[in-house]
Amino acid sequence: MLFRYLFSTPYITKTCTLNKLNRTLSTLPQLSSEKYGVKRKEFGVLKNDDVKFFQSLISKERVLTDESELLPYNIDWIKNCRGQSKVVLKPKTTEEVSQILKYCNERRLAVCPQGGNTGLVGGSVPVFDEVIINFMLMNKIISVDELSGALVCEAGCILENLDNYARERNLIMPLDLGAKGSCQIGGNISTNAGGIRLLRYGNLQGTVLGVEAVKADGSIIDCLRTLKKDNTGYHLKHLFIGSEGTLGVVTKVAIQCPSLPKSVNLGFFGVESFDSVLQLYKSAKSSLGEILSAFEMADSLSIGTTVKNLKLTNPIGEYPFYVLIETHGSDEEHDSDKLSRFLSREMDSGLIVDGTVTAEETKMKSIWNIRESIAGAALHGGYMFKYDVSVPLRSYYELVHVLRRRLRAVDCKVYGYGHVGDGNIHINVVVPEYSKEVYGLLEPFIFEEVSKHKGSISAEHGVGFRKPQYIHYSKDQTSLQLMRDMKRVMDPNGILNPYKVLPDPS
Amino acid sequence: MLFRYLFSTPYITKTCTLNKLNRTLSTLPQLSSEKYGVKRKEFGVLKNDDVKFFQSLISKERVLTDESELLPYNIDWIKNCRGQSKVVLKPKTTEEVSQILKYCNERRLAVCPQGGNTGLVGGSVPVFDEVIINFMLMNKIISVDELSGALVCEAGCILENLDNYARERNLIMPLDLGAKGSCQIGGNISTNAGGIRLLRYGNLQGTVLGVEAVKADGSIIDCLRTLKKDNTGYHLKHLFIGSEGTLGVVTKVAIQCPSLPKSVNLGFFGVESFDSVLQLYKSAKSSLGEILSAFEMADSLSIGTTVKNLKLTNPIGEYPFYVLIETHGSDEEHDSDKLSRFLSREMDSGLIVDGTVTAEETKMKSIWNIRESIAGAALHGGYMFKYDVSVPLRSYYELVHVLRRRLRAVDCKVYGYGHVGDGNIHINVVVPEYSKEVYGLLEPFIFEEVSKHKGSISAEHGVGFRKPQYIHYSKDQTSLQLMRDMKRVMDPNGILNPYKVLPDPS
Repeated sequence: MLFRYLFSTPYITKTCTLNKLNRTLSTLPQLSSEKYGVKRKEFGVLKNDDVKFFQSLISKERVLTDESELLPYNIDWIKNCRGQSKVVLKPKTTEEVSQILKYCNERRLAVCPQGGNTGLVGGSVPVFDEVIINFMLMNKIISVDELSGALVCEAGCILENLDNYARERNLIMPLDLGAKGSCQIGGNISTNAGGIRLLRYGNLQGTVLGVEAVKADGSIIDCLRTLKKDNTGYHLKHLFIGSEGTLGVVTKVAIQCPSLPKSVNLGFFGVESFDSVLQLYKSAKSSLGEILSAFEMADSLSIGTTVKNLKLTNPIGEYPFYVLIETHGSDEEHDSDKLSRFLSREMDSGLIVDGTVTAEETKMKSIWNIRESIAGAALHGGYMFKYDVSVPLRSYYELVHVLRRRLRAVDCKVYGYGHVGDGNIHINVVVPEYSKEVYGLLEPFIFEEVSKHKGSISAEHGVGFRKPQYIHYSKDQTSLQLMRDMKRVMDPNGILNPYKVLPDPS
Repeated sequence: MLFRYLFSTPYITKTCTLNKLNRTLSTLPQLSSEKYGVKRKEFGVLKNDDVKFFQSLISKERVLTDESELLPYNIDWIKNCRGQSKVVLKPKTTEEVSQILKYCNERRLAVCPQGGNTGLVGGSVPVFDEVIINFMLMNKIISVDELSGALVCEAGCILENLDNYARERNLIMPLDLGAKGSCQIGGNISTNAGGIRLLRYGNLQGTVLGVEAVKADGSIIDCLRTLKKDNTGYHLKHLFIGSEGTLGVVTKVAIQCPSLPKSVNLGFFGVESFDSVLQLYKSAKSSLGEILSAFEMADSLSIGTTVKNLKLTNPIGEYPFYVLIETHGSDEEHDSDKLSRFLSREMDSGLIVDGTVTAEETKMKSIWNIRESIAGAALHGGYMFKYDVSVPLRSYYELVHVLRRRLRAVDCKVYGYGHVGDGNIHINVVVPEYSKEVYGLLEPFIFEEVSKHKGSISAEHGVGFRKPQYIHYSKDQTSLQLMRDMKRVMDPNGILNPYKVLPDPS
């Protein structure tokens, strides 16, 4: 048993952000429409007069039409999808968004709303020539109530900026995810982002207090209340949380921020088997109780590859599984007391084989950086098939074994890691380059397996462009019909983020 | 400064439940349709053949048609509303609910879904002759996952029974409210019930994992998943949370239960002013942090009347304001340490003038009983106008002063109490008997005041039958139109809980 104090040298000199990784990729992905054989729907086609209208509405410099300028807005982060949009609009106000949508709706021009473009299912880039509405200039923080914790801001605010702003006021954002340096709160809400602290602070359905959104016809739905309790009629904000911009476009957000924890601890542990991971989770829930803020796991391949590809340092030895446990509490002494008792018991029991615990911020950042870089680091290996599923805990890691067996003859690597506390595992299958054969081996097989366990084929990434044809593994026909009914009533011309979320009727 | 240990004698011999109170009321309330001048809409009228159909579908003994038997189902708890239903149906399965709705939809028979009938805005009783679908026989607990905390049950399960069941498995229900002994989980979800621990465990929008519901046409929407994360398409369950049975009828529920706290403490404190209540809340949030599970307040009149009318004992002296603080934690020593430090500081500071703290279950129940009996106890005084609003904390108690001034010339009492942590105050105005004059003084005045503060005119009680005409104080016309659009698409014949929630178009 080896326990050490972390990091004698500052071995991480820069953080590997999504954008930087994106820029290192050189070849252009195939057009989504060709790659996936999609047919353009009967929308209007952008004309010079349309561009002139947009320029007169929001000024020339906020209307991009130059092909090279458009490229990064047409490609998604994992280079899986490429659209063919001819125009990017950058509104600064809700009124501008409203005018843009009203015009597009009348002209039947399809629209793709775009936040930080960190989505993983192709939801944030166009498929054909949809007009891109990019929210990066709607980035104002409007207000914060330090007593109640209600923060109000525009949709284009970057999550990390909001979190920093909140921290200066003894608050934190209730969600945190690897893409925080680039993703925008409007996109987070549109995709119902989950992340690493859902276990503690709950989901966005619970923490979002209010939303302002614009419907396809340009009408503004103002549910931007900061009240914790408001039962005056239908809870309309939920129409926009997780509907991926297909029912309306989120323009402003009110969110409940928890108190900044006075004491934070992070542990990184080596564990012998997945069964031990589960036992450790049960023990952590019981011993750490209300201060447990994250319980993450990653397999040996995930950590090993990340450390190697990004030249990081694994602070402990090599183990079949790694567990990351974080606590957020209000009393340093009490928290450290709870943690020590937990550690001492589970080191004695043998569940924890090796590990390190720290309360120093830079050291905690370094450990989180390893965990959060897993997806990006694996991309170095070539093309990535990315899955994000929920399954009951006892079947959590089984799927990785099943896939490794199924792909035995293929040159590939199968990575498994995720949010144990939420029953949510990410599985990345990396091959030297995109292969239809591997695709055929993976899909729909993986969704059928998840469906057998009554799981979700998309736990937190959403459906986007990549998964509508598989949504029936998690939603029955009656539910799909209700989704179509809602789409029809809220966006009768179907201009909002077409080819996404809703499958074509079979 | 006097601090005492609680209750040398067991002064509470029986719990005053809602049902018991109900039975003590003798006079029949006026018919809702007459009292509020409502016109019956063009629905079908129940015929003998309809009754025969229902009898053949679910058996004779589960179809009530005898007038005296129907009476309690036609009257709401606060005796404000009386409907004229000719039939109560008690289905046992989702399939039966589906068949009933399909039939009613085809026959254009209006329907009133009914849970524990503890609602406070007349949502759970019919207005005219709606068919009552009562859920009391759909009361099976289907499953519980002790590791993840997911509990699945039928809609008619009584909240307190579920909580007891959960406690035997080291879990608790995430919501708790005064009506827990009678209210049903299906009704809780349909009305998005809040209650006393929302501060700690969050709202139902966050804690409900899945819902099974039946639409007006009888189609069953199965979103009964137990997954914490599931982003496969629109989050349909939210259509049924808080829409008060007007978009569909909840038949089954999956809910996330938190761990049973290993340590619970309850304090009851005397405080000199509302400003001190607020300061105490700020201090409790900071000192008690993650273990703070409830922060309630009641004014002198609320506690005084409750204690007097129900022959209870106020464990401390008489003070202008009372604060009830509860902690839920995982470590007795740590919790008591946090609490002691908080108490010692705030007794020194003078914010707490008097008080008592206990960890004994029967004593805690006694204190909670005082708090939870406020609404019922005030009913002894005659007729109650009941309000439930959210306002920013700094204006929280102002409304009580404003109303007392406005009603100076009237024989009435104005009670103020509520969930400070959620910005939610209950205001009860009690008069010897219903008076149109007082009604005219109260409404819409009170809603206008709330609207000035950008509050909610119904924080947790919902809109029901009593508030649709005031909903515009909290929802603008565009939002109301979207509500109507959703109603049209989900219940085109408008049979589900008519005259409720949605205002008639002006």
